[in-house]
Amino acid sequence: MTRVRIDMFTSLDGYIATTGQSADNPMGEDWGRLTAAYAQTRTFQERILGDTSGAGTTGVDNAYAAAHFDGIGAEIIGASMFGLHAFPDDPDWKGWWGDEPPFGTPVYVLTHSAPRPSISMRGGTTFHFRGGAIDDVLSEASEAAGGLDVRVGGGASTAFEFLRAGLVDQLHLMIAPIMLGRGTRLWDEVPNLDQTHQVASEVAESGTIHITFTR
Amino acid sequence: MTRVRIDMFTSLDGYIATTGQSADNPMGEDWGRLTAAYAQTRTFQERILGDTSGAGTTGVDNAYAAAHFDGIGAEIIGASMFGLHAFPDDPDWKGWWGDEPPFGTPVYVLTHSAPRPSISMRGGTTFHFRGGAIDDVLSEASEAAGGLDVRVGGGASTAFEFLRAGLVDQLHLMIAPIMLGRGTRLWDEVPNLDQTHQVASEVAESGTIHITFTR
Repeated sequence: MTRVRIDMFTSLDGYIATTGQSADNPMGEDWGRLTAAYAQTRTFQERILGDTSGAGTTGVDNAYAAAHFDGIGAEIIGASMFGLHAFPDDPDWKGWWGDEPPFGTPVYVLTHSAPRPSISMRGGTTFHFRGGAIDDVLSEASEAAGGLDVRVGGGASTAFEFLRAGLVDQLHLMIAPIMLGRGTRLWDEVPNLDQTHQVASEVAESGTIHITFTR
Repeated sequence: MTRVRIDMFTSLDGYIATTGQSADNPMGEDWGRLTAAYAQTRTFQERILGDTSGAGTTGVDNAYAAAHFDGIGAEIIGASMFGLHAFPDDPDWKGWWGDEPPFGTPVYVLTHSAPRPSISMRGGTTFHFRGGAIDDVLSEASEAAGGLDVRVGGGASTAFEFLRAGLVDQLHLMIAPIMLGRGTRLWDEVPNLDQTHQVASEVAESGTIHITFTR
């Protein structure tokens, strides 16, 4: 059965992003610190950076990173994660994921801008632009996933929309062992999943705390 | 060297207490859920309930519970934790910890009420009432600790006061695998300890996440 999965990064004090988002630095300050352990995994090195030399960590963080990519048949992302706002009026702009995006599946981009044709990229990624209700987009993505899971990839506001709507079967949090002290609060946007989901926690060698809510 | 130590309970979403504090239920709703794993430890059964039958858990939660009591030479608590506000005008009121409180050390009670004489209880606990600056009370407690550590026992506002003043050498958080969704926020009151302290995390059999900041 198709499940809806989300992976998110947060700090100990529950901030998913801080200030300083800009076109040049769309994830804002501190994003590198939040995602450092993930970026050091072998899975990230291979899947995102294309480095197949065997570099990268192979412990608990990597097991979660590999699971993140495993069994995904379709993805839903917000317009900002595609990069739509960077060149909103350029019909030839294909997002900032490069010629061969790391998805390898149909990717549904939520947008209220003017309709755009779908874009097929190298490596099996096809971007579709949808302006409808998230339930409808999810139905379409689930069908496209062909029995595999649907990942809601971000940004945060997209993830929160699916969480608040009760549509998420698995939420995996990577809590970096750092404090940010300010920024966008994670927990204010997450419903009380402990009432509907099982909670499991594990600490990686890096000090990252992995918390998984599963229903 | 004397260190200043604090142990606190929090939920996944960073709430240390919820609503509903009253004279009958001074810790408020959900306190039992926050502290359930601790209350099930053998150390709690023995030290707090006086049950020496060997009942209680003996895993990771119990190791932290035992460490909580280990090497403490003096304690500092707020007036509410003593129970001073329950009978503020009764000079014979000895707090709600019973005839033999579980401290077994000098306990400095922070209060701005009228001075009271110290009270010696069975089992080595002596309550002293102090209205001065927390630095001064800490100096006195450190001297009384005789080389052992000083514990700041609570309530939360007392703990936060010491944390904000940079006086805490070790903060141990017990994060229960539950969400509360409302209440008093922990992290808003904790300075960015990751800049000054080492962070270590461990998950207990109960699902409780133990995070220890140590400098």
